[in-house]
Amino acid sequence: MVTADPYQAGCATRRILDRIGDRWTVLIVGVLGEGDARFSELRRRIDGVSQKMLTQTLRGLERDGIVRRTVHAEVPVRVVYSLTEAGRTLLEPLRALQRWSIEHLGEVAAAQDTYDRAGHGP
Amino acid sequence: MVTADPYQAGCATRRILDRIGDRWTVLIVGVLGEGDARFSELRRRIDGVSQKMLTQTLRGLERDGIVRRTVHAEVPVRVVYSLTEAGRTLLEPLRALQRWSIEHLGEVAAAQDTYDRAGHGP
Repeated sequence: MVTADPYQAGCATRRILDRIGDRWTVLIVGVLGEGDARFSELRRRIDGVSQKMLTQTLRGLERDGIVRRTVHAEVPVRVVYSLTEAGRTLLEPLRALQRWSIEHLGEVAAAQDTYDRAGHGP
Repeated sequence: MVTADPYQAGCATRRILDRIGDRWTVLIVGVLGEGDARFSELRRRIDGVSQKMLTQTLRGLERDGIVRRTVHAEVPVRVVYSLTEAGRTLLEPLRALQRWSIEHLGEVAAAQDTYDRAGHGP
């Protein structure tokens, strides 16, 4: 039994942190928290995400068991993305990050301004 | 008044998400949540972080108003890092990410294994 500890260099939890803390993960999980979605819908909702980045992130989330990709054998084939049970447990933590970024936007901008004026440079 | 919305491409909240979701931010804020620390202590606690990466992340966190850098005019000069008030409000959300990564480590590894065996490749 290996003890999971992100403070240890080799621990796989660090890669999980990279995955779940990623901005695209936050936004994708946020959309899927409201309901299943197709690729095109995700792309429309997440303004400015490239096709490549969305594909890559969805693949990583599917591999990590956070998102499920379901292919409906219809004509034309319909592919739907949804949160797995594990993915649903991420909803609240990631919504908290989203809320923090919105609530502290002004404060962060002011801090950056103060820092830069103090001559630290951006 | 600009509405903050990370689903919009140009919104500055996306850069804030990058900052707060970063693995080093999660670990640094975690250490500073237990008390102020010097650079050397942070480096020791966060196994494997390079001097450059720690310097860079601390600078970003200071600029964003999450971490405070205090220089004590002693001989030799003592530099101490601590969480600002805004930084303290990040503690719980980031601890939740850390907990998630630890609690789901086995589940994520199993999902990756299943995915790779299904021939998707890593």
